[in-house]
Amino acid sequence: MTTATDLEQLLAGAPVGVVGLGLIGGSLGLDLRALGIPVHGWAHRAATAERALARGLVDQASTDPAVLADCAAVLLALPLDQLVQPPPALLAALPPQALVLDMGSVKLPVLQALQPRLQRFVACHPMAGTAQAGVEAGITGLFAGRPWVITPSGDEPQDDLILARAFGQALGSTVVECDAAAHDRAVAMISHMPVLVSAALLQSAGEAQPQALVQLLASSGFADTTRIGGGNPALGTLMARCNRAAVQQALQDYSEALQQLSALVEQEDWPQLEAALTATQAARPGFL
Amino acid sequence: MTTATDLEQLLAGAPVGVVGLGLIGGSLGLDLRALGIPVHGWAHRAATAERALARGLVDQASTDPAVLADCAAVLLALPLDQLVQPPPALLAALPPQALVLDMGSVKLPVLQALQPRLQRFVACHPMAGTAQAGVEAGITGLFAGRPWVITPSGDEPQDDLILARAFGQALGSTVVECDAAAHDRAVAMISHMPVLVSAALLQSAGEAQPQALVQLLASSGFADTTRIGGGNPALGTLMARCNRAAVQQALQDYSEALQQLSALVEQEDWPQLEAALTATQAARPGFL
Repeated sequence: MTTATDLEQLLAGAPVGVVGLGLIGGSLGLDLRALGIPVHGWAHRAATAERALARGLVDQASTDPAVLADCAAVLLALPLDQLVQPPPALLAALPPQALVLDMGSVKLPVLQALQPRLQRFVACHPMAGTAQAGVEAGITGLFAGRPWVITPSGDEPQDDLILARAFGQALGSTVVECDAAAHDRAVAMISHMPVLVSAALLQSAGEAQPQALVQLLASSGFADTTRIGGGNPALGTLMARCNRAAVQQALQDYSEALQQLSALVEQEDWPQLEAALTATQAARPGFL
Repeated sequence: MTTATDLEQLLAGAPVGVVGLGLIGGSLGLDLRALGIPVHGWAHRAATAERALARGLVDQASTDPAVLADCAAVLLALPLDQLVQPPPALLAALPPQALVLDMGSVKLPVLQALQPRLQRFVACHPMAGTAQAGVEAGITGLFAGRPWVITPSGDEPQDDLILARAFGQALGSTVVECDAAAHDRAVAMISHMPVLVSAALLQSAGEAQPQALVQLLASSGFADTTRIGGGNPALGTLMARCNRAAVQQALQDYSEALQQLSALVEQEDWPQLEAALTATQAARPGFL
């Protein structure tokens, strides 16, 4: 089993680069530094670099890509659109000897965009987050106990996969390996599509009258069900955009399930409705 | 403003009856007793009566309706179907001098079923709950800070409304008065229909393949969004059954909202999708 020591050994004292110093990048920096691994951050704006240094997210930070030059690995903690359509300046900044790992929540389009353009690339998705964003958002321990998903294409050398796993293990994550398309379908179903399901609830409740009464009577159940639909709009849009085919399929599957339940209400088939709700009650613990 | 003292004064030392000693009835008993008000429970089964006494939910409990004889008020904390189609034994057990309040989560059908059959009746809905049920479920302070909804028909004497409000105020709730049909439409939108929206998510995710991967990648967002869809199946069914017209209308409004968001994904209209998600993000705090 690989441990934090293994990651240190694999890196042999070389720094790890982090591009993007928001919630994910900042949290990676904090945890890697706590393991004694030097972290170099490349930021678009000088203010971000300064703040990342001040917060202790990185050992070095700069707007100059030379800050990444000596890195053995570079973690791309960038918005999905920059992974799917990588800016030329990003590609030019990545040192050829480094293993590049992306941290995006959609995998097949990122794999297809980055692997042909980089000498060493492994697609990863650390499944962790909070509602925060930006250089103040990074926290320690964000990845502990959470899935660290790796979606190999099959073209990666074993050494690169070993290093990609070592990051997840060092951060206390559960390393999971699966096909990129299967990952994208799964996260469409349990993460990207539910954002729209939850947002539609806010939209319909927001139009209900009398609105003051509807708002007053909303309780913790409504708050829970609408949490993700009231989240970061740019992130929700990027997930739908970069995982569109899988999100559309998940929406179709979802609509059929809702239509089945609606039909039971329409037909006043209460025994079947209770049977369906008994099945969903029994199914839920499998997802927790 | 009415206070706990006012409730005591209004009751003039007479006990309050509670019918149904589950989560709501048991919690009512605990809080009323803590205010010094004697509570008498009528239970269907002797074991429930004994356990309610042992837990201190009530001062007296019996399977004999005579236990309610001296009560100034009786609170019906029963499943919705027993309120909408009250068993003759229930109607016979209610002492004619007592003000009867139901605690059901649907109001118009209960008002229509009970008000013509009782000398004194006010329809109430204390909007509070936990995932627990049964005689072990009652807890103290369940109603504090939560809405205590009263839906008068207009036929109630002022004194009865004053007593109905005094209960909510004594329990630390926020007393809200509204039209029964408006209440039912509002709770259909923010409580009853969302159970089906949430259950449909569990149903479609439960059919996604590979299931083990889907389950593994589900995170706190999925857990939150599916909490109410994985709740008590009998309760979810009763709410749909007893509030069917409003639930069907809410399902239709919801489906239209989801269809609008789906269309934006289909049309790849990302600026409009982000605008819609920005609107739902802005709307959510109004419901918290």
